[in-house]
Amino acid sequence: MTTADVPAPRPRLLTGDRPTAPLHIGHYAGSLRIRVALQREYETFVLIADVQALTDHFEQPKKVRDNVLEVMLDYLAVGLDPAHVSFVLQSQVPELAELTVYFLNLVTVSHLRQNPTVKTEIVQKGYGEAVPAGFFVYPVSQAADITAFGATLVPVGDDQLPMIEQTREIVRRFGHLYAPILVEPQAVVGRVPRLPGLDGRAKMSKSLGNAIFLSDGADEVRRKVMGMYTDPLHVRAADPGTVKGNPVFAYLDAFDPDGAGVQALKDHYTRGGLGDMTVKRHLVDVLEDVLAPIRERRAESAADPASVWAILRAGTQRGQEVVAQTMHAVRGAMNLTSLEAAGNGPRGWAPSYPAEPD
Amino acid sequence: MTTADVPAPRPRLLTGDRPTAPLHIGHYAGSLRIRVALQREYETFVLIADVQALTDHFEQPKKVRDNVLEVMLDYLAVGLDPAHVSFVLQSQVPELAELTVYFLNLVTVSHLRQNPTVKTEIVQKGYGEAVPAGFFVYPVSQAADITAFGATLVPVGDDQLPMIEQTREIVRRFGHLYAPILVEPQAVVGRVPRLPGLDGRAKMSKSLGNAIFLSDGADEVRRKVMGMYTDPLHVRAADPGTVKGNPVFAYLDAFDPDGAGVQALKDHYTRGGLGDMTVKRHLVDVLEDVLAPIRERRAESAADPASVWAILRAGTQRGQEVVAQTMHAVRGAMNLTSLEAAGNGPRGWAPSYPAEPD
Repeated sequence: MTTADVPAPRPRLLTGDRPTAPLHIGHYAGSLRIRVALQREYETFVLIADVQALTDHFEQPKKVRDNVLEVMLDYLAVGLDPAHVSFVLQSQVPELAELTVYFLNLVTVSHLRQNPTVKTEIVQKGYGEAVPAGFFVYPVSQAADITAFGATLVPVGDDQLPMIEQTREIVRRFGHLYAPILVEPQAVVGRVPRLPGLDGRAKMSKSLGNAIFLSDGADEVRRKVMGMYTDPLHVRAADPGTVKGNPVFAYLDAFDPDGAGVQALKDHYTRGGLGDMTVKRHLVDVLEDVLAPIRERRAESAADPASVWAILRAGTQRGQEVVAQTMHAVRGAMNLTSLEAAGNGPRGWAPSYPAEPD
Repeated sequence: MTTADVPAPRPRLLTGDRPTAPLHIGHYAGSLRIRVALQREYETFVLIADVQALTDHFEQPKKVRDNVLEVMLDYLAVGLDPAHVSFVLQSQVPELAELTVYFLNLVTVSHLRQNPTVKTEIVQKGYGEAVPAGFFVYPVSQAADITAFGATLVPVGDDQLPMIEQTREIVRRFGHLYAPILVEPQAVVGRVPRLPGLDGRAKMSKSLGNAIFLSDGADEVRRKVMGMYTDPLHVRAADPGTVKGNPVFAYLDAFDPDGAGVQALKDHYTRGGLGDMTVKRHLVDVLEDVLAPIRERRAESAADPASVWAILRAGTQRGQEVVAQTMHAVRGAMNLTSLEAAGNGPRGWAPSYPAEPD
C-alpha cells in the first residue's frame, strides 16, 4: 500500500457551547448552520463546555448539568450528525484542565487584563474588582481546548476573535519555549451577524427573556414573533417604516431563503402601506419552515435519552483519545517525567515522555 | 468482625517540594526532620511538585525534570520510608489541575492580589505587572493539592501560612456552595526558624549559591563551612564577637544536640577568646554527624535508580487512588454529569456522579 492509498486525515474543527440554556435561533443562524455545512469537510469536535460554563455559573451547577442534555438535543435536531461529529463533554476530559494550568504560565496577568471581550464581560456582569479568577482566565482555558483537539479551524462570532488571537500567541510561545508541536488555529467568522433579541436589543439570550429557542413549540414561536419589537414610530400600516434596527427584518435576512422577496418587503415597509402584522405573519411562516423539521427531530431524540447519552459518551471517548495524543506530545515537549518510561530504558535516570506513544 | 477490630484510618499529612534543585540542610532543619518524625503517625503524602515548579521555571523544564530524581534521593536519604510515605509526582495526577480549575471560580482576582507571600515573591522576582498567570494563581493550585489528598495536617514554614488560610477559605466556600465534603486543613509551623544562608542572608538557596546540600560530599561541606560569613567585626580570636545574625551559631542551634555546649560556645564567643575557625571546625563535626548517614543512604539509592523510580511510581499510584476518590465526591457535589451513569439508572435523564463510587 502506497501513501497515495491512505486518505489524508481531515483537518479538525472545534466549536462548542456553554450548556447554560437551550440553544436559540441566534445560535442557529450564527453558528449551528455553519457547523452542519462543514461537518463532512472537517473532523468536527463539538465541545459541551460545562467546565467553562461554571466560570460564571459556579453558583448554579444544577442549571449547567440540566442543560447538557438540552444542548445535545439541539445539536442532533439541527442536523449535526454523529457519523461526522464527536460531541465531547468538557468535564470528562481533565487533561483540558491540565493543559490550561501549563498555558497559564505562558500568559501574564496584565495581558489577560487587556482582553477586550473579557473586559466588556466583566463590566456587563458587574464584577468590578471581584472578578472570579476562573472567569478572568477563561481565554486560557479556551486556548487549551482548541489546541488539545488540534483544531485548525474555529468558527466564531466576531466577539470571540480575541480568544483565537490569544490562542495563537500561546501556541507560538509554547513552540518557542518547548517545541512547535501545537497547531495555530484559524478563526472563521460567520457570514450572519449576531441576531438581535425579540426586544431589539443587540443580543438574544435566555437571561434577557428575548429569545426564540430551537425547542419552542409552534404556538410559542408565533406568540413571540407577534409580540416582537418593531419600528415604534410605525403606528399605522400606511405610515412609512424603518427597516434598520428592526429585528423582524433582521430575522428575515437570516432565515428567508427568498432574498429578493425580503428586499421587496423592506422597500414596501419603507415607503409605507405594509403593516407589521403582515410582515410578522410572513416571518412566522419562514421560521416554521426552518424550525418544524428541527422540532420534529428534537422530539424523536428526546423520546430516547439513553441513545443521546450514548452518542455523547462515544464522542467524548473519541475526544479523550485525541486529547491524550496531544497531551503525550505536550508532556514530552515540556520534559515532564514519564513514570511509565522511568527506569526501563537507557535514559531511565531522568526520563521524559518519548516522542511517540508506545 | 466488629468495627472495634478495624484500625481507624490514620489522618493524612501532605508536604512537598518543588524539584528545582537538590534539597539542602535548610530543608532538613525546617521540614524534612519533622516529616520523618511524623511519618508513622500520619498517612503521609510527599508531593514532588513539578507542575508548581514550572510556574516560575517554565523556561527551564529540563532543570525541573532532572531534579525529580535528585529530590527523591534526598527524601530516601533523610529517612522518609516508602513503607509509611507515598511519594507522588504532581504532573502524573491531572485531576489536581482539574480541581485547580474548579477552585479558580471560588477566588477573586483581587483576593489573590492580596496574598502577602505572593506579593513579596512578585517583588523579589521582579515580575512587576508581567507576573505569569500561573504563578499568580499558585495558591489555588496548592489548595487543590492539599484538599485533593484530604490532608488534615500541613507542616509549613511561616511564609506559607497564607496558603493554608487560602485553602481553608476555599474549602468553606466549596462547602457552602456545593457540599461540605472537603477537609479544612490545619497548618503546623516547624519549631526551627528558617536557616540563614552561608553568607548570612535570610534564605538558603541554590540560586543564591549559599547552601549546603544534602548531597554535598564531606570535603565540600568542610570547605563551605570554613568559608562561612560570621561576625565581620570579630577580627582576632581575643575580640568579643556577636552571636546574633551569625549563621554559624544558627546552624549549631539547628543541628548540635548538645544545647548546653552551644550555649557555652556562644558565651565564650561573646566575651572574646574564641576564634571563628574553632567554632567552624566544631560545626563541621556536628554537620558530619547529621550528614554522613544521609550521604551514605543517598549513595545507595543513587546506585539503583530503577528502584527509586519504582518507589515514586508506587507512591504516585496510591496518590492517584486517593485523589480519584476525592474527585469523585467533588464532581458529585458540583452536579457534574457522569457519562458512566448516564442513561443507566432511573436518573439517566440528567445524571450526576453518584454519592459513592460503584
